[in-house]
Amino acid sequence: MPRIKCLLSYDGTNYAGFQFQPNQRTVQGEIEKALTTFHKGTWTRIHASGRTDAGVHARGQVFHFDTAFNVPDENWKRALNTLLPDDLHIQHAEHVSEDFHARYSAVEKEYHYFIRTGIYDVFKRNYTHHIAYPLDLGAVREACGRLLGTHDFTTFSSAKSTAKGSCVRTLHEVSFLEQGDTLEFIFRGNGFLYNMVRIIIGVLLDIGKGKFEPGIIDEMLEKKDRQIHRKTAPPQGLHLWKVSYPDNLLK
Amino acid sequence: MPRIKCLLSYDGTNYAGFQFQPNQRTVQGEIEKALTTFHKGTWTRIHASGRTDAGVHARGQVFHFDTAFNVPDENWKRALNTLLPDDLHIQHAEHVSEDFHARYSAVEKEYHYFIRTGIYDVFKRNYTHHIAYPLDLGAVREACGRLLGTHDFTTFSSAKSTAKGSCVRTLHEVSFLEQGDTLEFIFRGNGFLYNMVRIIIGVLLDIGKGKFEPGIIDEMLEKKDRQIHRKTAPPQGLHLWKVSYPDNLLK
Repeated sequence: MPRIKCLLSYDGTNYAGFQFQPNQRTVQGEIEKALTTFHKGTWTRIHASGRTDAGVHARGQVFHFDTAFNVPDENWKRALNTLLPDDLHIQHAEHVSEDFHARYSAVEKEYHYFIRTGIYDVFKRNYTHHIAYPLDLGAVREACGRLLGTHDFTTFSSAKSTAKGSCVRTLHEVSFLEQGDTLEFIFRGNGFLYNMVRIIIGVLLDIGKGKFEPGIIDEMLEKKDRQIHRKTAPPQGLHLWKVSYPDNLLK
Repeated sequence: MPRIKCLLSYDGTNYAGFQFQPNQRTVQGEIEKALTTFHKGTWTRIHASGRTDAGVHARGQVFHFDTAFNVPDENWKRALNTLLPDDLHIQHAEHVSEDFHARYSAVEKEYHYFIRTGIYDVFKRNYTHHIAYPLDLGAVREACGRLLGTHDFTTFSSAKSTAKGSCVRTLHEVSFLEQGDTLEFIFRGNGFLYNMVRIIIGVLLDIGKGKFEPGIIDEMLEKKDRQIHRKTAPPQGLHLWKVSYPDNLLK
């Protein structure tokens, strides 16, 4: 049966998150509804690279589904976008081999987190986290460097998480760009724990405020304790930017 | 009684427009509710430079109100922003003389209208008008030039308008900037009729598509007939940018 991979962007503002929940507006729910309409009532399940929480956005979420229909790539894109609400958009659709799985084949993910420090801007409120205090960017930069590489990130995962298995992840990039009064943080790694980026941002902001020294990062990594830090930066600053797959799975 | 002038920005997406309507979420309604709370239940009416329709935004709307309270400028701003929802923001508040009136004292208004011609972007859907066809920008530029100056703009006003009085207005600027795949139109003039900018954009898009020659502008101005052109560009591209007042009224 043909397998279709889709590249998806969404404005998460008006969603209760990615994952299907009954009686809630979810990204998965809207897409499965559109696919079911397209398949004349046959329910079609999608598999995404991972979930995102309520209010979190995506520029490059990836999902796949299997279909009995024989439709050219470009038509999939057009047909689905016609059926989807205007805050979801399929940027690209293509046939992939049955070895491809949006979640299990992913080798790298990239998240961006936007923080604004200037005058409050109503037009950015849903897409950035606005803070009213100045940050010591030198300290934040040093802390970013300490997060790079392979660590057990237990301390940086949600106490609500029920996931089992290893909390060891490798971060290939932890950096930020300054653009006017906006800081764009970039996190790239082989995987992320639940709420990991938002918890890291919470710690980085405390370091930027001078509440902690950058060395706190090493202590937190060492302690492997979910209860230490309970500040999770708000969802609207977080954007799932890109999911990468091995080249051989894509054609 | 002290008179306070406020500079206001708002994301119009979730409003039924500026003007108060019972049982609707309006900009005026939210601000008067906040002012009434601040005045311990005494209803306080505001007067704006003009209305905006549902979905239209403002970077620089101006309103004034009279108050029996004696509060420094900076405190007005802080107190009101605390009471207002997050899609409304007072950028500036100041005491003005009783000769100042947000509507009647205005000498110039500026609107910007944003059009996107590239790939659909979910994050811009509420703030720009996305079109899927190419535009002949040379023709659009020529048409802009024909709108400059003093004309009777009856043809460019809404057939729904019940306003009486002259439809003669002077446009001091009609231009556009190209920024990547975004066109930012700028309209600056001594006044605008109801729906005038959105109707002009509708005509400019038809000219850009090649449906009309730029000379249609002169014919339309000549005819003074509200029924000729019925295409009104959608509200979300429109932003009330700035309202200007004589210097002597401001201090």
